[in-house]
Amino acid sequence: MNKLSIVGVGMVGEAAAQIIAREEFCRELVLIDVQGELAKGKALDVWQAAVESGSDTRVYGGSNAELLQGSDLVVITAGVPRKPGQSRQDVLSINLPILDGIMLDIKRHAPAATVLVVSNPVDVLTYRAWSLSGQGRGKVFGQAGVLDTARMKCFIAEATGFSARDITALVLGGHGDSMVPLMRYCAVGSVPLSHFLSSQQIEQIVQRTRQGGGEILGLKKLGSACDAPGVAIAQMVDAIANGRNRILPAVAILEGEYGRTGIAMGVPCVLAEEGLARVIELSLDAQEQAMFDRSADQVVRDIAEMNAL
Amino acid sequence: MNKLSIVGVGMVGEAAAQIIAREEFCRELVLIDVQGELAKGKALDVWQAAVESGSDTRVYGGSNAELLQGSDLVVITAGVPRKPGQSRQDVLSINLPILDGIMLDIKRHAPAATVLVVSNPVDVLTYRAWSLSGQGRGKVFGQAGVLDTARMKCFIAEATGFSARDITALVLGGHGDSMVPLMRYCAVGSVPLSHFLSSQQIEQIVQRTRQGGGEILGLKKLGSACDAPGVAIAQMVDAIANGRNRILPAVAILEGEYGRTGIAMGVPCVLAEEGLARVIELSLDAQEQAMFDRSADQVVRDIAEMNAL
Amino acid sequence: MNKLSIVGVGMVGEAAAQIIAREEFCRELVLIDVQGELAKGKALDVWQAAVESGSDTRVYGGSNAELLQGSDLVVITAGVPRKPGQSRQDVLSINLPILDGIMLDIKRHAPAATVLVVSNPVDVLTYRAWSLSGQGRGKVFGQAGVLDTARMKCFIAEATGFSARDITALVLGGHGDSMVPLMRYCAVGSVPLSHFLSSQQIEQIVQRTRQGGGEILGLKKLGSACDAPGVAIAQMVDAIANGRNRILPAVAILEGEYGRTGIAMGVPCVLAEEGLARVIELSLDAQEQAMFDRSADQVVRDIAEMNAL
Amino acid sequence: MNKLSIVGVGMVGEAAAQIIAREEFCRELVLIDVQGELAKGKALDVWQAAVESGSDTRVYGGSNAELLQGSDLVVITAGVPRKPGQSRQDVLSINLPILDGIMLDIKRHAPAATVLVVSNPVDVLTYRAWSLSGQGRGKVFGQAGVLDTARMKCFIAEATGFSARDITALVLGGHGDSMVPLMRYCAVGSVPLSHFLSSQQIEQIVQRTRQGGGEILGLKKLGSACDAPGVAIAQMVDAIANGRNRILPAVAILEGEYGRTGIAMGVPCVLAEEGLARVIELSLDAQEQAMFDRSADQVVRDIAEMNAL
Repeated sequence: MNKLSIVGVGMVGEAAAQIIAREEFCRELVLIDVQGELAKGKALDVWQAAVESGSDTRVYGGSNAELLQGSDLVVITAGVPRKPGQSRQDVLSINLPILDGIMLDIKRHAPAATVLVVSNPVDVLTYRAWSLSGQGRGKVFGQAGVLDTARMKCFIAEATGFSARDITALVLGGHGDSMVPLMRYCAVGSVPLSHFLSSQQIEQIVQRTRQGGGEILGLKKLGSACDAPGVAIAQMVDAIANGRNRILPAVAILEGEYGRTGIAMGVPCVLAEEGLARVIELSLDAQEQAMFDRSADQVVRDIAEMNAL
Repeated sequence: MNKLSIVGVGMVGEAAAQIIAREEFCRELVLIDVQGELAKGKALDVWQAAVESGSDTRVYGGSNAELLQGSDLVVITAGVPRKPGQSRQDVLSINLPILDGIMLDIKRHAPAATVLVVSNPVDVLTYRAWSLSGQGRGKVFGQAGVLDTARMKCFIAEATGFSARDITALVLGGHGDSMVPLMRYCAVGSVPLSHFLSSQQIEQIVQRTRQGGGEILGLKKLGSACDAPGVAIAQMVDAIANGRNRILPAVAILEGEYGRTGIAMGVPCVLAEEGLARVIELSLDAQEQAMFDRSADQVVRDIAEMNAL
Repeated sequence: MNKLSIVGVGMVGEAAAQIIAREEFCRELVLIDVQGELAKGKALDVWQAAVESGSDTRVYGGSNAELLQGSDLVVITAGVPRKPGQSRQDVLSINLPILDGIMLDIKRHAPAATVLVVSNPVDVLTYRAWSLSGQGRGKVFGQAGVLDTARMKCFIAEATGFSARDITALVLGGHGDSMVPLMRYCAVGSVPLSHFLSSQQIEQIVQRTRQGGGEILGLKKLGSACDAPGVAIAQMVDAIANGRNRILPAVAILEGEYGRTGIAMGVPCVLAEEGLARVIELSLDAQEQAMFDRSADQVVRDIAEMNAL
Repeated sequence: MNKLSIVGVGMVGEAAAQIIAREEFCRELVLIDVQGELAKGKALDVWQAAVESGSDTRVYGGSNAELLQGSDLVVITAGVPRKPGQSRQDVLSINLPILDGIMLDIKRHAPAATVLVVSNPVDVLTYRAWSLSGQGRGKVFGQAGVLDTARMKCFIAEATGFSARDITALVLGGHGDSMVPLMRYCAVGSVPLSHFLSSQQIEQIVQRTRQGGGEILGLKKLGSACDAPGVAIAQMVDAIANGRNRILPAVAILEGEYGRTGIAMGVPCVLAEEGLARVIELSLDAQEQAMFDRSADQVVRDIAEMNAL
């Protein structure tokens, strides 16, 4: 991939940038933030780190939206995280106008770019970004499930002692309580997880994954997780930049899949050179479908609330 | 390497941890901080990032010094950075007792561990750590020049357009103003840098490198560089963990080299399995020697001031 | 891992050596062959390739069995491949005394080394190596299924277009006709393969995998496959060298698992620092069990024939 | 890079293919040989190896020149190696018509492709390929010096014990006796090699490098080196595929540099996205210039002989 822009250089944007530059997923990496000097400083730090790692990715930063020009992919990590005492809607009311501004900039300066939304609440903001973009769903989608599966794999590695390389997992739906884990598809070295762990142990892993972000926030107190979210973004960028046709969970606009239309939901997708190539529709069992529906209904409500803002 | 501990989980310690875990430079990575929950939170985040990258390095954290037990290498990144208006001595007076406490912990729980000092002021604190350790200089040394050369390489890449992979550079002495660049040894693809850049351009790169940390602090304002320092630490860890016999600049206790004894100075060293295998003594020209002496005299004064604390 | 020896430097041994050195799975890599000069020549070539790749693995070779001394792991790739017109027993009668000689050398010079048998027929020779070693099954085992799954994954990638990174597969039993594929455990991005391919397509992939070695021999005519077998060996070496606790198929001595004792069979195993940590026993359905029994019965007959030699 | 073709699938072509696929330097890798089945068989083996390594590079092969279509880069490794008793001209008389045929195919099916000549004698054949191509020298050049420097670095690592990562070297001129080593530019960790080795030791390394190919042929007897040549090709491919602006020695058509015009010689070049971006002209001392002239005069004679064929 030639040019990648990250809009918003908080901890998550910076962590993603550091890995993307190190791994040379693009030739040119631009960090953009309303705080232009901050973006410049972080870009310089990331660039120096990349050079010392033998990477030839060029990194620079600033506040000017014109920097977006020529981007193949724009990752949006701007916005505030949810603080203790804030409701979902409090966060949304702050991040919505930020996203709207960024989408305007993208339409003006990089109208053909693929857009990956990371800012929270990610399902609602992905829907909004797609609505504003005027593009097909293949070009605008969000990150959610890659991070959840990363956490789940970590907990499975801890519980079983097996190598990270052999653990595969899949989650649908939203972050947190509305996550829909498909544990029957979860395996270690192709062997179903239930061969190694009791259903009680598996349930504990599911619960811990649901609260994965909260666990880290509770420990760090003054900041949310950044390293694993950074890797999750980098994984999706790699799939697109290298045209891999990978199956990864993404927040996608549904067009009838899973019985829903016109909402953004975490579902397994094929990520390819152009972006999201297609949504994979799995047959769910009754319990999974119930969880999915609960998750989807929440998104419907959230979108309605957003439209009312 | 089996076990590596990082004491101090500020931005630099975390950045180093993230790369070390990703690259599997050790089997077990422990993050230790007086803020135990913070260390646990960052360790969990780093671990989840590692797992998603296919790394089997196990990461955990806490505040208990017993976690040091069995460490092959301890990296010390604890302490406060210098803030605007603070003198070197202000910083030293805060960081010295922190280092002293950590060295006590190391002597108690991991007396055979190699120790890499990163906290500032790094030359004085490396000297102190070595004094307290009761070990040979091969086991206690500091990071300084790897970061400076990383920055210099980045500026050379920018000025020449050449690949990061082909640029080699070498600096001696302390950070910042007291840095001693050996520009005649600087090359791109084995071709001396002077083939590509005028002496004025080279002088600009030297000046910018001297102020490399300050440039980023000036842009970020609320925080210092972390990504490039993290990679610099990771480079030194890799050389030791994989027994590479690499020639890298390090802050070493001099034993007559460069005409000095009993001070800690940035000089080219051979990093091998056991730690610092030896110091490489280069013949300096008059100008270089003058810069080196100025740098060394400063360290002598700093050590005297420290001893007076 | 400190020292790894490869005995037999045909195409497969050389291909494995090249990857192991490039990836630095050991510090010291020794190539041993009755043709000592050939071993020296290939070692030098592999070493020069490694250096140019930035690897610090030291590679050397020769014919002297004393070179085995201090090996943590010995990979046996010596012996002749099966040629057109030869029976299994023809090959066995040539390779058996070769293996016997190597095991004698290992017992004399590296009695504590883990042994990975690659020479054909691999199940019978693994059984023989284990019998001669006087060690537990954790220290002597063979490569078979990693190569078969590599081929199956390749054919699945071709048929589905999905990324190699997302395809997981598992085979049991012997090579070729006696391979026992567990297709219900085969997945792409955690989604069962049957979601993407018809049972007829899957059956074609199974058949092509069974004949995977023959397909390449038929095309190359004067030589067997070497690149994929080399990677298969390297994968197993990595799992052991880095103590990963990976689940990989290996030819293991069964001790009651799958209803068999005292034979060597391809089964899923946990590969860890010491070697084969344990055998994983899956419950097979009737068809799979029938295939497994047919495969096991063949091994029983082969061992009997070997003992009669 | 999208598509890379390798014409000629002997040991060197196969070794290069294996690394290029593993490292994903292109999306599509085509192996072409007059022995189409051999090319297909090796391509399948390399592809299976790549998949098992997690690479998404697609590999296939055949004999049809139309397979070249759409290639960004064509690597020519076809032709016979020099056998004992054969003169240079014997080899040239066999390989020249082979190269001519390949260049015709390239002009027909991939006229815009960059061409990297590896077949021997490489300087003469690079000149011929460029003459036939009708393209600028930036699009047609050869491999020679990367392999020589790889060997020299290996011997320096052996003599000094230092890490492969810190050794830099540079050679000009032809292979073997006509190689022009620039030992004053050779360094370890930026420190000139003469700091570590005596001039006698350095001279021994130069001599051994000159005979580097012969040393391996003498040991292997039935075949030349393949692993290090494969890595050398892969290094040049990486520089081009990833647009690195690396300084690497290459066989380039001189246009007045080093006092020569209209011959192909090994000189330091900048390899970038489009191919050879420019030749770097170093000032040679008297001894180096004499060696260079002897080397260049030989090429002039060889080209004259070729034209007389």
